[in-house]
Amino acid sequence: MAGDRSDHRVLQYEQSLMYGRYTQELGVYAKEEATRLKESEKKVSQPSRTLEHDDGCCAKFGPFRWLKFLISLIGEDWIFFFLLGLFMGLTSWAMELGIIMLQKGQKWIYGRLDSNGFLQYLGWVGYSVALIMFSAGFTQIVSPQAAGSGISEMKTILRGVLLKEYLTFRTFVAKVISLAFALGSGMPLGKEAPFVHIASLCGALLSKLPVFRGIYENESRYREMLAAACAVGVGCVLAAPVGGVLFSIEVTFTFFAVRSYWRGFFSVTIAAFFFRVLAVWYKDEETVTALFRTHFQVDFPFDLKEIPAFAFLGIISGFGGALFVYLNRRIAQFIKKQKLFNTFLMKKCLVYPVMVTFLISSLLFPSGFGQFMAGELTQNEALVTLLDNRTWTKDGVAEEFDYIGNARVWMHPQVTVFGTLALFTIMRFWMCALAITMPVPYGAFMPVLVIGAGLGRLVGECMAFWFPDGIHTGHAIYPIVPGGYAVVGAAALSGAVSHSFSTVVMVLELTGQISHLLPALIAVVLANLVAQSLQPSIYDSIIKIKKLPYLPELGWGQHEVYNIRVEDIMVRDVQYITLSCSYRDLLNILMKSRLKALPLLKSAESMILLGSIERAQLQSLLSQQLSRARRLQCIKERGAEEKTILSTESNPPSNNNSSLQTGQEEGHIQITNEELHLPPVVERPTDLSNSSQDESGVTLRSIFCASSDAEEVQDDRDVQDPTSEITDWEARQLDERVNFNNCKINPALIQLLECTSLHKTYTIFSLLGLDHAYVTRIGRLIGVVSIKELRKAIDGSMTLKGVKVAPPMATFRNSSLSSSQNETTYLQAVRPPEEHANNAPKHVC
Amino acid sequence: MAGDRSDHRVLQYEQSLMYGRYTQELGVYAKEEATRLKESEKKVSQPSRTLEHDDGCCAKFGPFRWLKFLISLIGEDWIFFFLLGLFMGLTSWAMELGIIMLQKGQKWIYGRLDSNGFLQYLGWVGYSVALIMFSAGFTQIVSPQAAGSGISEMKTILRGVLLKEYLTFRTFVAKVISLAFALGSGMPLGKEAPFVHIASLCGALLSKLPVFRGIYENESRYREMLAAACAVGVGCVLAAPVGGVLFSIEVTFTFFAVRSYWRGFFSVTIAAFFFRVLAVWYKDEETVTALFRTHFQVDFPFDLKEIPAFAFLGIISGFGGALFVYLNRRIAQFIKKQKLFNTFLMKKCLVYPVMVTFLISSLLFPSGFGQFMAGELTQNEALVTLLDNRTWTKDGVAEEFDYIGNARVWMHPQVTVFGTLALFTIMRFWMCALAITMPVPYGAFMPVLVIGAGLGRLVGECMAFWFPDGIHTGHAIYPIVPGGYAVVGAAALSGAVSHSFSTVVMVLELTGQISHLLPALIAVVLANLVAQSLQPSIYDSIIKIKKLPYLPELGWGQHEVYNIRVEDIMVRDVQYITLSCSYRDLLNILMKSRLKALPLLKSAESMILLGSIERAQLQSLLSQQLSRARRLQCIKERGAEEKTILSTESNPPSNNNSSLQTGQEEGHIQITNEELHLPPVVERPTDLSNSSQDESGVTLRSIFCASSDAEEVQDDRDVQDPTSEITDWEARQLDERVNFNNCKINPALIQLLECTSLHKTYTIFSLLGLDHAYVTRIGRLIGVVSIKELRKAIDGSMTLKGVKVAPPMATFRNSSLSSSQNETTYLQAVRPPEEHANNAPKHVC
Repeated sequence: MAGDRSDHRVLQYEQSLMYGRYTQELGVYAKEEATRLKESEKKVSQPSRTLEHDDGCCAKFGPFRWLKFLISLIGEDWIFFFLLGLFMGLTSWAMELGIIMLQKGQKWIYGRLDSNGFLQYLGWVGYSVALIMFSAGFTQIVSPQAAGSGISEMKTILRGVLLKEYLTFRTFVAKVISLAFALGSGMPLGKEAPFVHIASLCGALLSKLPVFRGIYENESRYREMLAAACAVGVGCVLAAPVGGVLFSIEVTFTFFAVRSYWRGFFSVTIAAFFFRVLAVWYKDEETVTALFRTHFQVDFPFDLKEIPAFAFLGIISGFGGALFVYLNRRIAQFIKKQKLFNTFLMKKCLVYPVMVTFLISSLLFPSGFGQFMAGELTQNEALVTLLDNRTWTKDGVAEEFDYIGNARVWMHPQVTVFGTLALFTIMRFWMCALAITMPVPYGAFMPVLVIGAGLGRLVGECMAFWFPDGIHTGHAIYPIVPGGYAVVGAAALSGAVSHSFSTVVMVLELTGQISHLLPALIAVVLANLVAQSLQPSIYDSIIKIKKLPYLPELGWGQHEVYNIRVEDIMVRDVQYITLSCSYRDLLNILMKSRLKALPLLKSAESMILLGSIERAQLQSLLSQQLSRARRLQCIKERGAEEKTILSTESNPPSNNNSSLQTGQEEGHIQITNEELHLPPVVERPTDLSNSSQDESGVTLRSIFCASSDAEEVQDDRDVQDPTSEITDWEARQLDERVNFNNCKINPALIQLLECTSLHKTYTIFSLLGLDHAYVTRIGRLIGVVSIKELRKAIDGSMTLKGVKVAPPMATFRNSSLSSSQNETTYLQAVRPPEEHANNAPKHVC
Repeated sequence: MAGDRSDHRVLQYEQSLMYGRYTQELGVYAKEEATRLKESEKKVSQPSRTLEHDDGCCAKFGPFRWLKFLISLIGEDWIFFFLLGLFMGLTSWAMELGIIMLQKGQKWIYGRLDSNGFLQYLGWVGYSVALIMFSAGFTQIVSPQAAGSGISEMKTILRGVLLKEYLTFRTFVAKVISLAFALGSGMPLGKEAPFVHIASLCGALLSKLPVFRGIYENESRYREMLAAACAVGVGCVLAAPVGGVLFSIEVTFTFFAVRSYWRGFFSVTIAAFFFRVLAVWYKDEETVTALFRTHFQVDFPFDLKEIPAFAFLGIISGFGGALFVYLNRRIAQFIKKQKLFNTFLMKKCLVYPVMVTFLISSLLFPSGFGQFMAGELTQNEALVTLLDNRTWTKDGVAEEFDYIGNARVWMHPQVTVFGTLALFTIMRFWMCALAITMPVPYGAFMPVLVIGAGLGRLVGECMAFWFPDGIHTGHAIYPIVPGGYAVVGAAALSGAVSHSFSTVVMVLELTGQISHLLPALIAVVLANLVAQSLQPSIYDSIIKIKKLPYLPELGWGQHEVYNIRVEDIMVRDVQYITLSCSYRDLLNILMKSRLKALPLLKSAESMILLGSIERAQLQSLLSQQLSRARRLQCIKERGAEEKTILSTESNPPSNNNSSLQTGQEEGHIQITNEELHLPPVVERPTDLSNSSQDESGVTLRSIFCASSDAEEVQDDRDVQDPTSEITDWEARQLDERVNFNNCKINPALIQLLECTSLHKTYTIFSLLGLDHAYVTRIGRLIGVVSIKELRKAIDGSMTLKGVKVAPPMATFRNSSLSSSQNETTYLQAVRPPEEHANNAPKHVC
């Protein structure tokens, strides 16, 4: 659990980063061709196999030939995003049905057991606990990556980091089923944010269909597709296409390509269409309308004099949103810190969700405490009632008229409407913040929306109480519409928690009425103003909690980023290798530093930067130089020509080793081990965990063990050779000059200058998904800036020139986030599996 | 007009590009300080001037000290964007008032002159012509840059190109006043697109206010501010904040920062609020509602079976949109081609708009042909009537009920409603395409929206005619609502013309009803699908017509961009200079090539790229080496030490020339000519047109004249020296090695690889606003890619590996755009004025 294990993880993760990002896949095309050839050879039944250049148009698979032709005629993208939309619409609709059934189940049990209060309680709580247990267990067993909202992870993936197993079929199944059960349990969870992940999963899986084979293998295109797919997620759940796309963009991206936005729009239109059409066909509704349709008066929705009240609601929502994020993070951090508790939870991962569910479900029990806070209602039902266009009170007393459906539960003989609304809001508030720490798939959007609606309704009812005849001074009397306040509150609170403006659009689309646009906009703007200066968004907060490799957002007030320069934050003491260094230098530098990639200079004097070489590449060079194969060859050669063995070899080892099939044009080094009858030696760069199979020499073993904390080298076949002789031989080998001929050198595509501003650096890093960049002065290397330095500078932990980098109001934010000194991450992001290899985000090539 | 003149312009433009982009303003800070010092010195009345480090927080101006402190406390951005919103709201409202007054003026005249048909006609047409004449004349005199929509130019500016005079106060005044008059004339023009320009102008001007001094001087921040300001434009005109922001983003950006989107949202909320509140205060309305409020039934807005009709409408709109763009471009190109006509127009710039206005106004004359096409209505009035929620016909005969206000004009005794609608649509269609070629400020959005509404209404009325009892099969009868079709048609046609989806949101915000969201989305998606595969958007089309330096958008179908690599499109024969080259080499290369910047290599053997040097820098080096000042100095020195004069000087000229105040720390070379009592010599890099004042030697003169087509060197003071002696001296000077010590070397920040895909190259160029990038292989220069090659590759004029790059349906598009072989541009973008210098987009530093 401790030190070395986590170090190992860090390294794996670093390796994956390195692999995901710095591999200059010079030979990707050749490799694809080879894979395709192999695959085709398997299908011997196909006689008409052509090896023509695959430009994405010609079909190679008989049954799909015409389909492919058709697709290429219309355009793959249109077809793909049509299918994605269709599929997402179906998924969304099917899940909706399942969730409603599960929720009805709980009510049915509750109704059947009404003879015995305790049994009823047991049934109510037991049902929730059972569903959550199933959800958590299923997630744990099938794909732990499915837990959580997924937005934070998608944000990281789109930033260019490869997170393993996040886009697989297993995760899809786990996410969909667990989410349905988690929501069916009646916990205050939502399904909006997880749908961003589900949509991306759908996109990733669809792109692997045979018809689309070869189209989305290109990494750029794959990432573009993922970006568009992300945008589809929310829209199809809420049948709010426009707001959904915007919301997905706001919460997932720093920079967004307008191209992807179009694709997202196209797809979400299809998704929303099918989602709603299915509802009509299923006879739920007569035609396509909004999900939570309101019936406010359209001629005079609100008075201008009400604007201050809406603004006030926005400001409260802002504080509420910040508090929500803070509370959630505190709970998550508290649970992480309890070591005893934590180890216990690690073993019995179901204990925690069961405890939480038990607590929340007990409080919501409709015959118990739940009667004071409309515990009976599901979230959707609660929202519908809260958006009611009538006023619930008259002079402070609950009105007696026929409430729509469930609205009657808000009235309680002992408590006024104000009381139930306040209780509802406050209790749900912390319940939701607590519930979204459970290891199940969850979203916080819908519960927060409902809480916001509750808060808004409360303010609205108060306004209606204070101004029973409305505020308008004209001829007609326009009473105040508390439902309008509910709409505005919903938009404001959800906007504050997620730091987005598009909740306005989403809420208006949900209600089907646009009349409250202006007050909603004002409230959301104010809520965002408050919340953004106090806390990060819930998704950024989760990124911080999970310690995902992501750059924090630049806040509004941080104008210092324009004044800080790269020279203020860069690391000046750069470790490097030169073209003329020896293998011993290489060894030393590998032992000394833990950098993922090392800069290659022309010479130590000129300091001219030629590019960078990955650590794994260098390790491979070393291992090759000291490999058993080479040693045996040397011994053989010594046998043949005894005298010349000690003269320095100027030829590179791989060149005179005839058994090495160097894929020079690819930049890849591949040794056919079959020819050597030896275990793989140079597969190391692709998978470090293979090093146990490696029969490295003494030095090599020491360096790999030291530098990578890999598993101990088990293979002791080397003991047959006298160790001293090997050491001697290795020492000689180490003195040779490194031959970089077959080494992949990544050009330093982005070079910064000392005077580049922090803002520009941030922009470049975000835009191009960089992890580090070298700082040069007329070609000479003078420093390096990595994402770590950037993060530090942006988070304000650096004071430069007497300028504190943090924004004025950020002290609260900093203190609550300062616990990130431990940069360990628990990502299991290693070498991507074969089918992912092409999709791995790479550097600018 | 011909060759040399346009060449000169090209050069000026290239120079400006070079200046705008490649200047590595290492000394920007020092320069700013100097400017500030000067300014402060002017204000001698202020005793407390401190020279402290300006970090944007401390105030230097007494009266603004506290204001600045307050601003820095709240955050400059919030304040700035609040002010921007407020100002835009006021501007928009004031313009609206002015336009309405002008439009009423025409109707008043028409009404007063109804006694005499011909007088009435004269009054009607004369009024329009007079207003357009004023508008065109005012634009021409005050600021020709104010003509046009401005979106194309803003797109280019945000792309990183500096367009001179586009963001000045003069332009603002010209744009606002001319636009009001142009719209008041009743021509089919809109004010939405120009407001993007106006908002950017407002932002640029506001940022120069004393309170914001020093805050938006940073170039990154300035550009970010412009991006957000752009987003404000449309929203405040239509009181459609959400749709407006989205529309501005869609039409202006390729990549968008979510940060800017938030700022835009904030600002547009303020703007829309004030715009609408002013309307309420002005007693136009009782409260804040939508501009063109509709009153459709909300319970059953449309039947699902109507979706095919909406889809059909979308497809027609798509073709219509493409045709509109094609027609507009054809007209513009036709007029440009007519040489005789053109020179005539150049001289009398008012003739063309008068002709166009006369034609259109005559056709619209309400008592004439206009009676068949509702010529009497202004665009807003027409839109209101078209969105009427009742059906105008019953069994093909016009219904007789009390039409809202002006709707009666659609009924004509001779022509059916279908006829007037069709005529309205068709006539307005070409009229608008023609009108937006006039040299006045214009937008095409609103007219196209109205045309789309007309088209939609036509389809809707047809549907109502074919299905008088509606399509619904249930119990209730829901008649078809033609107004709904008008809404959908408006969104679809405007979406097709501008290639945007957000028109949906905008139209729904305009009508205040969201019920037709789904059909509108479907129609817009289909319209975009059709239009995007046939034609570029109207704004891209204008960019092509104006030959602005912008990359075309990547189309949907262009999946080949992923397969083409940089090596396929790069220029391999790169001209370069080396560290060890002589001045003669420099001279030769400057004579030979016309590149804006030349790569600097370590040596011709190693080919290692160190960076690039601007042409102007090199010219400055040369002119310095061969300058009269230096020659005189040499003669003086020769006089002093006769013997050593011919020995090669190893010291750089600028170092032993004590009268040269080299701003070494700034990287600038400045010679104080006052000390030398000579005209300026090395001011050349900043302004090439000064070369006539220069007393260059023979060689120098020849190279400048040859390479820049500058005006002939008039100054013949050199004749007093024997030319042969000068030539000899120059020959000796040219053999010296170039001293790059004081030369600004721009590091090649972005280096591409041979295998970088076209798509990635495009992305990098777009994101970072590049103009060219070098292609390297392990530090060695092997080629260069400029925006020209990229444009060619994307436009499909390159066939590579047998792959035609253009999308399948683009033949029509290509043939119509192929007339761009002449890359001449008429931008007058030279060295930016002093106050712009800091805002000039620079390279990554």
